[in-house]
Amino acid sequence: MLDQRLLPVKETYIRLTSLQSVVDAIRDMIVRGAPAIGITAAYGVVLAVRQAYKSDPAGWREVVETSLGELAKARPTAVNLHWAIERMRRLFDELDGDPEALLLDEARTIHDEDIAANLHMGELGAEILQGTTSVLTHCNTGSLATGGYGTALGVIRTAYSNKIIQSIYASETRPWLQGARLTAWELLQDKIPCTLIADSAAGHLMRTGEIEWVIVGADRIAANGDVANKIGTYSHAVNARYHGLKFMVVAPTSTVDINMPSGDDIPIEQRHSSELLEYANKQIAPVVTDVFNPVFDITPANLINVIVTEKGIVHEPDEKKMRALLIP
Amino acid sequence: MLDQRLLPVKETYIRLTSLQSVVDAIRDMIVRGAPAIGITAAYGVVLAVRQAYKSDPAGWREVVETSLGELAKARPTAVNLHWAIERMRRLFDELDGDPEALLLDEARTIHDEDIAANLHMGELGAEILQGTTSVLTHCNTGSLATGGYGTALGVIRTAYSNKIIQSIYASETRPWLQGARLTAWELLQDKIPCTLIADSAAGHLMRTGEIEWVIVGADRIAANGDVANKIGTYSHAVNARYHGLKFMVVAPTSTVDINMPSGDDIPIEQRHSSELLEYANKQIAPVVTDVFNPVFDITPANLINVIVTEKGIVHEPDEKKMRALLIP
Repeated sequence: MLDQRLLPVKETYIRLTSLQSVVDAIRDMIVRGAPAIGITAAYGVVLAVRQAYKSDPAGWREVVETSLGELAKARPTAVNLHWAIERMRRLFDELDGDPEALLLDEARTIHDEDIAANLHMGELGAEILQGTTSVLTHCNTGSLATGGYGTALGVIRTAYSNKIIQSIYASETRPWLQGARLTAWELLQDKIPCTLIADSAAGHLMRTGEIEWVIVGADRIAANGDVANKIGTYSHAVNARYHGLKFMVVAPTSTVDINMPSGDDIPIEQRHSSELLEYANKQIAPVVTDVFNPVFDITPANLINVIVTEKGIVHEPDEKKMRALLIP
Repeated sequence: MLDQRLLPVKETYIRLTSLQSVVDAIRDMIVRGAPAIGITAAYGVVLAVRQAYKSDPAGWREVVETSLGELAKARPTAVNLHWAIERMRRLFDELDGDPEALLLDEARTIHDEDIAANLHMGELGAEILQGTTSVLTHCNTGSLATGGYGTALGVIRTAYSNKIIQSIYASETRPWLQGARLTAWELLQDKIPCTLIADSAAGHLMRTGEIEWVIVGADRIAANGDVANKIGTYSHAVNARYHGLKFMVVAPTSTVDINMPSGDDIPIEQRHSSELLEYANKQIAPVVTDVFNPVFDITPANLINVIVTEKGIVHEPDEKKMRALLIP
């Protein structure tokens, strides 16, 4: 895996060969982004089963459960993690003998399907942007956050290459700076121009500028269409509504948690105060300062104009439309 | 002067003995905060006149004009800079012989008046906060930003010491992190507890928390009550209005530019891209990334519930009320 903590300064790849190293990688944000976390978890299940089968070829299904519990707890907000573990687990009963090869096939399928979903969402979302000049995106939702290509950034990629949009603003996304460190870096690789802003400059940009859409990903979508996403998404949505701009969420249906009635039920991860008190081991604020560091927030469905998924588009999302979307 | 660029890691004092060193200190943000910039400029005029008088005791008034022009251009948004220079300049015609002592007296008076104004605004603003539990402030508006005590932070200090408010949230204030580096440090010195948040967490905090007021300073107030202040102020104001919270601006009348009809006429300073691309010489984003870095924004009067000045309080500000405030 590319260690995303070190980007854009260093491109360092690390090899994960145990379930524990996968748990650590997700928790410590070597990999982040809801779809990428899901895919990583799927490969993590393969490693967990390999270890369990080696230690107990007959009883591996019971042995592996503790590991899967650990994996599921690595991060609390993104539902793709649970979705991927459950999808892998559903195969367990069908397996005879060494389960590794078939589970690896399934993990690769999850990975491939995610890329295909991204490409399809890119086309669907770009079509909606016809007549748009500029967009703002938040956090990182590109190749680094998915199996490849991206969700919100996939729509932006497609819209830019189809000459539908001309300019892209990326908010830096405190505290982890995914926008500055990852999105700016990814778009640079693809020679797509982008302009970086402080998160708090979004209101000023909307008031004075020419943005028409805010486009973001999602870490979990509740049954009523409420969206949990990176902290700052909600402020952008409030500002977008106040300025009469449109707000688009792009996420595969593996992000939809139909058992979660509303966004207020989604657990919001609080991360360590050090994310605000220091940067690259340099102190920013006094070390004893109290910190409130929720790394996700909830954007209620009524602030969202459209949710783009690989199964189709939901305009003005609500529970009825979200349930209809998921009917096979 | 305390070098504010190095806080809270180092408390380093530097001695400014020339006009040029004062210009550099204001431009490079060794000192910042609209009232503090004004006071520093007043002392800068003393140094400029000392130099001019030494070189030409008869023609110092003409000699000094170039220096004062340089000083006025050090930063574009805060009007207190121009206000202080003009107030000092008005004395020039009354002076005979060596002008230094009398000008130094005037600079000290400006400084003393600012502290007195802060203390008075603290009382006025705190009174309005009766019945409030928690407030959010942005940027730094304390002793470091003024002659002493503070504007918005002065109100917060008074309200806290009078047991009117119990808790204070400070947004970190990207890109220069005045909230994290300066406000958290200042409040720690006074043993006033505060909780630091990412700027973009303000919306989430307002939606889920117990804040009743957002309290900020100002770098320039237009005749119609529009306020130029640190970037992010406007997003906080939009979010406050959306969540039904109140919004208070605290600033001395030296911040009011009655010749500026509206906020849209106020020049907004753009600072260097490096403020977003690196921190403490550590790279954050690819160095070639385009950056939009306005360091102030305009909050229109209609989003402001109250402006607190040393001359009194303006509720629901408009041009008529602002002009009435300034009548001697």
